[in-house]
Amino acid sequence: MDMTFDALKQKMKTINAINITPFDDQGRIDWNDLRNNIDYLIRGGISMIYPCGNTGEFYSLTLQEAMEVTRKVVEYASGRATIIAGIGYDVQTACEMAKHAEAVGADGVMIHQPINPYMLNGGLLAYYQKIVRSTRLPVTLYVKSEQVGLDVLREISREPNVVGVKYAVNNLPLFAKTVKTVGNDIVWICGTAEMWAPFFFAAGAEGFTSGMVNVDTGRSFAMLAALKANRYAEAMDIWEDLRQFEELREKNSNGNNVSVVKEAMRQLGMCSGKVRPPITELQPNEKEMVRQVLVKWGLLQ
Amino acid sequence: MDMTFDALKQKMKTINAINITPFDDQGRIDWNDLRNNIDYLIRGGISMIYPCGNTGEFYSLTLQEAMEVTRKVVEYASGRATIIAGIGYDVQTACEMAKHAEAVGADGVMIHQPINPYMLNGGLLAYYQKIVRSTRLPVTLYVKSEQVGLDVLREISREPNVVGVKYAVNNLPLFAKTVKTVGNDIVWICGTAEMWAPFFFAAGAEGFTSGMVNVDTGRSFAMLAALKANRYAEAMDIWEDLRQFEELREKNSNGNNVSVVKEAMRQLGMCSGKVRPPITELQPNEKEMVRQVLVKWGLLQ
Repeated sequence: MDMTFDALKQKMKTINAINITPFDDQGRIDWNDLRNNIDYLIRGGISMIYPCGNTGEFYSLTLQEAMEVTRKVVEYASGRATIIAGIGYDVQTACEMAKHAEAVGADGVMIHQPINPYMLNGGLLAYYQKIVRSTRLPVTLYVKSEQVGLDVLREISREPNVVGVKYAVNNLPLFAKTVKTVGNDIVWICGTAEMWAPFFFAAGAEGFTSGMVNVDTGRSFAMLAALKANRYAEAMDIWEDLRQFEELREKNSNGNNVSVVKEAMRQLGMCSGKVRPPITELQPNEKEMVRQVLVKWGLLQ
Repeated sequence: MDMTFDALKQKMKTINAINITPFDDQGRIDWNDLRNNIDYLIRGGISMIYPCGNTGEFYSLTLQEAMEVTRKVVEYASGRATIIAGIGYDVQTACEMAKHAEAVGADGVMIHQPINPYMLNGGLLAYYQKIVRSTRLPVTLYVKSEQVGLDVLREISREPNVVGVKYAVNNLPLFAKTVKTVGNDIVWICGTAEMWAPFFFAAGAEGFTSGMVNVDTGRSFAMLAALKANRYAEAMDIWEDLRQFEELREKNSNGNNVSVVKEAMRQLGMCSGKVRPPITELQPNEKEMVRQVLVKWGLLQ
């Protein structure tokens, strides 16, 4: 798919779905389940899909597996959705991943925040510039901590192919100030999904990411519609309907984040539920709580 | 070098030096400077060297570079020091790095804490077990956050080839409780260097890691001797002498950590001072502060 940066920015003002990476019982990637996962998202109305995000257990994949996941998701989507590939690690590796994403037909890349323990503003800017300037693809930055601050975001957003920021720091005043200062030439996406989306929208976000759409897209789209129409009370009613599921994901310092999604998908027959270390499957009482949510939502008997 | 696990444990009760990875002006690894760095450490009395640690900018190296750094450091040390290679990332990659470290003659491996945003105790234990059981080499765990808790450490320390923990969480009561609970069959190393070593020793550590030994080994060895002899007042006098340098490294949320070491080495003619993104060289006033410390220490005129 080929589109201008401006056209992509308009498209991003929606639910940005982070697909899972399904594994079989031996822990290998289950390509058939991945194809079904992508089909499910698209049939549910999803138009933006991000392989190799954190819901996709990016850091539990080898580099080769990550690149293959991107290639396959582009193939499975087959033009029916916009595919933004997660990339990261050191500069050289990130540039190679961007090159690969372009070669296999992805529509853009999302740069994971560098994993280095030590960062400085000048170095962070250089890190992003080198990657952004190495590719013709549009780029979204995934911001995970306040270390990637306002000054760095203002500078890097001047690059013509930087189209958006997935902002995953739940400091709303800082986010609001960042949007006000950096401006709306780029698209601001709430990076902490439905539980935080209303507050990020109030502060200037125009889209949000979601892992729960892998289980059910309807509630997320209802929330999106309410937020786009400034119907916050309605959005908060939907929020309340989602809360139990998302709170389960937040348990154990968010350790349950992916395990809950995959367990729900397992109960719905969508994947094996297998996850890779350093996460693990849920406790029996947590699986039961997932079941209760699915029943409440009418997805299970 | 071949040694029993017990012999290695005894050797680890010292300064555990994390060497730098020197770069040339084009940002490529400068192998000649790396050789000189290793020689300098060994001539200064260092017996334990860890290539691919955070002072070595591990996460700014490609996988191929990291493995080559380990191979070269083993070659340069040539049996004169014990070499423990940093390894990490997803399970499969970490196992391959351990296999490579063994093949090139490293004496052990240090597993960086997994970089995944989501972790669960069972999954963390599985992560470590798979890597530890994949190799015959002795293994040290590098603990960076409280997410790697007491239960996981107690279980994984039962593996015969787990010899030590580099503990880099500055929660002294938690560290003391962990040592008391898990016990001294493994060696506990203060992972936050000289500024924290006296407090960790009081709590049960028997060694500490150091990046500043790349600049000067004498002061660190004086502190080690004082701590081993329970002369805490003397250790704290040395601590005061080190403080200015280490505080410079702590600036910008530790962003300066490696840049200060490399700038000091540059001023002493030991490397170019170049670092890779996401860090950068120091500001001019910070470089001047580094110079003043080196003059105070008698290393520069």
